[in-house]
Amino acid sequence: MTTNTSLMRREILEIPQAVDRLLTHGAQDIAKAAQAVRDLDPGVVITVARGSSDHVCTYLKYATELLLGIPVASVGPSIASIYGAPLRLAGGLCLSVSQSGQSPDIVEMARTARRDGALSIAITNDAASPLAEVSSYTLDMHAGVERSVAATKTFVTAAVAGLLLLAEWRGDDALRAAIHALPKQLEAASAIDWPEVRAAITGEQSLFTLGRGPVWAISNEAALKFKETCQIHAESYSSAEVLHGPVSIVDQGFVVLGFAAGDAAEQSLAGITDQISAKGARVFTTSSQVRHATAIEHVRTDHPLTDPIALIVSFYAMVERIATSRGINPDLPRHLKKVTQTL
Amino acid sequence: MTTNTSLMRREILEIPQAVDRLLTHGAQDIAKAAQAVRDLDPGVVITVARGSSDHVCTYLKYATELLLGIPVASVGPSIASIYGAPLRLAGGLCLSVSQSGQSPDIVEMARTARRDGALSIAITNDAASPLAEVSSYTLDMHAGVERSVAATKTFVTAAVAGLLLLAEWRGDDALRAAIHALPKQLEAASAIDWPEVRAAITGEQSLFTLGRGPVWAISNEAALKFKETCQIHAESYSSAEVLHGPVSIVDQGFVVLGFAAGDAAEQSLAGITDQISAKGARVFTTSSQVRHATAIEHVRTDHPLTDPIALIVSFYAMVERIATSRGINPDLPRHLKKVTQTL
Repeated sequence: MTTNTSLMRREILEIPQAVDRLLTHGAQDIAKAAQAVRDLDPGVVITVARGSSDHVCTYLKYATELLLGIPVASVGPSIASIYGAPLRLAGGLCLSVSQSGQSPDIVEMARTARRDGALSIAITNDAASPLAEVSSYTLDMHAGVERSVAATKTFVTAAVAGLLLLAEWRGDDALRAAIHALPKQLEAASAIDWPEVRAAITGEQSLFTLGRGPVWAISNEAALKFKETCQIHAESYSSAEVLHGPVSIVDQGFVVLGFAAGDAAEQSLAGITDQISAKGARVFTTSSQVRHATAIEHVRTDHPLTDPIALIVSFYAMVERIATSRGINPDLPRHLKKVTQTL
Repeated sequence: MTTNTSLMRREILEIPQAVDRLLTHGAQDIAKAAQAVRDLDPGVVITVARGSSDHVCTYLKYATELLLGIPVASVGPSIASIYGAPLRLAGGLCLSVSQSGQSPDIVEMARTARRDGALSIAITNDAASPLAEVSSYTLDMHAGVERSVAATKTFVTAAVAGLLLLAEWRGDDALRAAIHALPKQLEAASAIDWPEVRAAITGEQSLFTLGRGPVWAISNEAALKFKETCQIHAESYSSAEVLHGPVSIVDQGFVVLGFAAGDAAEQSLAGITDQISAKGARVFTTSSQVRHATAIEHVRTDHPLTDPIALIVSFYAMVERIATSRGINPDLPRHLKKVTQTL
């Protein structure tokens, strides 16, 4: 590795070992929090987060609804920080995610959720942060210090910590095993960086990313990273939602990146990316079920819910290359700081 | 009005009378449904919708959380239509919104929510639609036939129907009165069409719309309409969220349209649009509290929760002009049909 390697790339390559560290050192705290959640048997879950962490929450929302059948509401931090409105949360669970655990609006929303009756669990990379302080349980990401402004290893470790919480909550051995198999699979995923996609988006200033179900969260994260690190206006849609309006801006040569996991939505997602391809767009899909769109390389894991995690690692490997090939330092995105404090 | 007037413009100009019709002919059904919700006293609300209707749900989510303190979860229709996963919804409320009431995924999600224990209320412009059939209560939008593919009057009537449901549920006289004052105020709002914004976005292919709290839903709807009717890549963000990454693509001259209602978030939103303005973007905000951004004309109503409705009407009046000035027929957006059926 040369001295020119970006922090972002180093941190992407650290992901497998960060996940391994989380599974070794974090599992006990996760099991303890899961026991508290099982005892509570919540009727509703709310999530509190922003940016990449909010995409972790979207992923965990789908996983919670699919695995446990409990509806998950993403609550805007403004409900507490701006409007000061109490919520009826007795018997509910509040899950907050923040790498730094610092943003005042996130801390305030988590604090008031607990005050309003929720069991509150924070997933953070700083177990001594204000967010950890106001929460009933803290799950440390164990990601190690993240120095690149663009979150990568903390996104993955937060998602894995949350998923393991759900596996423990449900007592789901198959999912537990799939999670423990991740470090090796993420090693393989980090070696994939989609040269055909990179070639297609040279010069592109606007594109769509697509997903459906849990992998839609990965599409959201990918779109944000395109903006943050490459100054490309990427926007994420559910593959069903895109047909309700947004497809109108798809023109000849418009680039679309479709994320498919090996789950019940794969065929539908592949079909929709084929439809968009037929309109003249250049469409790439992480599925072998496409007919017109271009299938791109991907790692399938041992469970449909861990597939999305492998996909984002390959995406990170790619997007870092796009940024550096454009002469952009992905570690210091324009206008951004590592810790964003909003009220 | 010449024969060249678009259906979209005609339907925008019909909004005040459509709302008046809803308040006259729909109020009784809304009061009846509200009584059922009051009797239930739900601990959680889920919403089911796509496209513009989903923006109505986002608006109603904030309104429900602020007025009644009940967390609202937007559930992806795929949970039922693709994954077939049951939800624990006993004692909960399911609110679905669809102009046509036809899309199979929306109907399936609403049907299974009721099966899984929820009281289900559909807001639709077709009281004989499949969505109405599977729901416990139906609130007719009373919008009259909407012929333009781009929804305008059905967005507004759905939002007003939902808001009146909340006012009745809460027994909130001030909100009820503010809703009944809307037709006249929306008349004034439809005469505003932001010439300075129109002048700024000539040729622009990418922009941001911003909001915070309930008016963030209006920002979402505006971004979709820019795409649908003008083929402009507009993306919507919470004014807090935009600082967590997306601001990175803001360059000199980038256009940002900030929606502010006269509520507790106004000052914060104005401040953030000022910050973005200082980065060289051309920023327009519906607030007189801005210092660097350009304040644009707006109608304030009698309640912070009805302000967003007036703002979207002014936006519709503007976006139709942008579309037609670009030689695009806003009634027939590229690649779109009026009724989108997704699974």
